[in-house]
Amino acid sequence: MQVSRGLEDVIIKTTSLTFIDGEKGILRYRGYDIQDLVKASYEELIYLMLYGELPNKEELEKVKGIINESYEVPESVINVLFSLGRSCDPLGMMETAFGAMASIYDPKWDRNTDKETALKIIAKASTITCNIMRSKEGLKPRTPEPSESYAKSFLRSTFDREPRADEIRAMNASLILYTDHEVPASTTAGLVTASTLSDMYSCIVSALSALKGPLHGGAAEGAFKQFQEIGSPDKVEEWFSETMKEKKRIMGFGHRVYKTYDPRARIFKELADSLSSKNPKAREYYVIASKLEEVGLRELHERKLYPNTDFYSGIVFYSIGFPVYMFTPLFALARMLGWTSHFIEYVEEQHRLIRPRAAYVGPDRRAFKPIEERSKKV
Amino acid sequence: MQVSRGLEDVIIKTTSLTFIDGEKGILRYRGYDIQDLVKASYEELIYLMLYGELPNKEELEKVKGIINESYEVPESVINVLFSLGRSCDPLGMMETAFGAMASIYDPKWDRNTDKETALKIIAKASTITCNIMRSKEGLKPRTPEPSESYAKSFLRSTFDREPRADEIRAMNASLILYTDHEVPASTTAGLVTASTLSDMYSCIVSALSALKGPLHGGAAEGAFKQFQEIGSPDKVEEWFSETMKEKKRIMGFGHRVYKTYDPRARIFKELADSLSSKNPKAREYYVIASKLEEVGLRELHERKLYPNTDFYSGIVFYSIGFPVYMFTPLFALARMLGWTSHFIEYVEEQHRLIRPRAAYVGPDRRAFKPIEERSKKV
Ligand SMILES: CC(C)(COP(=O)(O)OP(=O)(O)OC[C@H]1O[C@@H](n2cnc3c(N)ncnc32)[C@H](O)[C@@H]1OP(=O)(O)O)[C@@H](O)C(=O)NCCC(=O)NCCS
Ligand SMILES: CC(C)(COP(=O)(O)OP(=O)(O)OC[C@H]1O[C@@H](n2cnc3c(N)ncnc32)[C@H](O)[C@@H]1OP(=O)(O)O)[C@@H](O)C(=O)NCCC(=O)NCCS
Repeated sequence: MQVSRGLEDVIIKTTSLTFIDGEKGILRYRGYDIQDLVKASYEELIYLMLYGELPNKEELEKVKGIINESYEVPESVINVLFSLGRSCDPLGMMETAFGAMASIYDPKWDRNTDKETALKIIAKASTITCNIMRSKEGLKPRTPEPSESYAKSFLRSTFDREPRADEIRAMNASLILYTDHEVPASTTAGLVTASTLSDMYSCIVSALSALKGPLHGGAAEGAFKQFQEIGSPDKVEEWFSETMKEKKRIMGFGHRVYKTYDPRARIFKELADSLSSKNPKAREYYVIASKLEEVGLRELHERKLYPNTDFYSGIVFYSIGFPVYMFTPLFALARMLGWTSHFIEYVEEQHRLIRPRAAYVGPDRRAFKPIEERSKKV
Repeated sequence: MQVSRGLEDVIIKTTSLTFIDGEKGILRYRGYDIQDLVKASYEELIYLMLYGELPNKEELEKVKGIINESYEVPESVINVLFSLGRSCDPLGMMETAFGAMASIYDPKWDRNTDKETALKIIAKASTITCNIMRSKEGLKPRTPEPSESYAKSFLRSTFDREPRADEIRAMNASLILYTDHEVPASTTAGLVTASTLSDMYSCIVSALSALKGPLHGGAAEGAFKQFQEIGSPDKVEEWFSETMKEKKRIMGFGHRVYKTYDPRARIFKELADSLSSKNPKAREYYVIASKLEEVGLRELHERKLYPNTDFYSGIVFYSIGFPVYMFTPLFALARMLGWTSHFIEYVEEQHRLIRPRAAYVGPDRRAFKPIEERSKKV
């Protein structure tokens, strides 16, 4: 009886969605290199992931239409977000909002409408993410209004201003970079839920709960807080050796699959570089991050630890104007597409209840004694 | 590259909690046979699962004290339950309530206080389960008041009446029978979440979302609805052959691990028999269920399909007075103990990020074309 620790190398499903070569640092969605796909619009990617091919103009308009019609979420869900209070954990708020939607909408998995449900989830996730920030910032609720793009609608409703073109481009690219990554913990938790034929909103709830952890979606926030803690580039070396001495991990470094530079990290770095050039505070963090990367690469590359996608993404979000607590919800927003695509692929093509085993290592059979006969312990 | 379909026989962790022999139909918690443990109080079982041994009187009082002090949940969480509306799915409401608690309480896993957090979760789950029913029934919120037993406090606050002794005994036994079952889908989803070091409330949220599915926690409701649909014992044979013809599954039959009679089903059957004798409507269902069991055993035992724990449990709950929609929340209430025990065991003793792989079977690398160059499809 061999324990598969962390389910390393256990294959839970097949997929036509995402290909990762962890040795060469390659990431493709449905055969297209991530470097090429970041040039597309997020709506094109939505079509690609859910329907298998890049859309032509008509197909794209159809998807945009469904999304634009689906931003509205029930008032009771918005009320829940605004009643929870400004000090609440934002990912917990997102779990709550999707839990509420699970209680209101379709109670069971429906194979006939699952792609449409996915599109609705993607639209409503924009509304929810936007209102998590609005609730925490003490603003009024607002629903994203249709515009040329999903990224623009989201930024405009979140910040109550017209976003700049470079901000929209960066938001669009971030959504694509975070769209999917095969079966990390969050996707796996959601797949287990899908395997019981629970509804798709509940699958998202599971995935969100797992994404919340600091070893997973929480890492972008963790990485950024390191830059804040370090404070200036000349303190990087000292901070790094202290951290290593305390046997703590560098957040935004290391990956179960990549044993080389994460291709997403490279693109996020370029985005962070160009966007932070317009924002002096963000620039400071960018300079510290680059220095930390340099030291980290020098000291850790022998152990095959490289920057991952969460290392620079926070600087991009921060440059656009997002508070640090929004980094994980933004990751979640983008990942809705990857999650729902995997759930649908699993239930439609290869469904089976997911039920592993545990190896029993506890006491052998023992006789029950009623409480009167149990001796006092010291 | 071999896909582990449904993770069958993949060992995700070791455990000292629960031993199942699926061939012989044996279930033990920490070495004690389930048949013996149903005689204990649920509070003794709480101690056994979390601390490893059955408690003496002092130890038991300590655990009871913490639970009695922890029934209160934040007003905002109760408000969420009552604002969602009477038509909402109860398991979705439970996800929402625990999501809200995740957003209010401790944001990250804390190894120093995790057993105390588990006790708090067990107490607050009683309050939440009680108020899901009260909200759906149009009653006012109520928090369980301390009494001699967890089961009694729960029943009294849920029904606004003094429960009978046999009802308390049946509720206590049901809590014990549903306490744990190694690593079914719900526990697995929660473990994946625990592996990212997300907070314990979020681990519960993941587990609840998975429990919701009709192939898992939803099965007791599914089984009971069959009895309602059949309507009378002389229609069982016909209904059964129709169902088989349509290649539908008998709910409450079959199990990934048990290839013989589920020992919990036997105890639930006894309880259902004795409790339903006081409730004519419940008795009708009991008679139908017994007949369906007989036919099912005759026709399906060669395929090693036997009644599972969900087959008779609904009749017990129904006899006490619970509406059918409460069966899954009651399963969830009891399972809080098993879930938290597994999460703690995993994080304290064998923690590693859970991250399986997917085998890529999609298109090879292909070149990206901008949307203008994509041909119209027919
Ligand atoms: C992502 C992560 C959990 C993958 O971990 P994993 O595959 O389970 O790797 P392991 O826990 O087996 O670690 C292997 C070794 O590398 C070390 N290591 C891994 N990540 C490290 C990091 N970020 N900093 C320092 N050391 C690290 C471990 O301490 C371990 O060393 P040891 O063998 O001496 O104990 C891990 O790299 C990590 O915690 N990174 C930081 C959090 C993060 O950025 N997460 C986002 C991922 S996209
Ligand atoms: C619990 C359950 C999901 C376990 O399933 P599993 O280990 O994945 O079993 P499989 O899906 O591989 O099924 C094996 C075979 O038994 C059949 N089978 C399993 N459970 C059945 C049931 N309840 N009624 C009729 N046939 C059943 C399957 O159809 C399959 O037959 P096939 O090989 O001809 O296709 C399954 O037994 C089931 O759906 N039961 C009903 C729901 C239920 O009671 N769940 C609560 C469990 S505590």
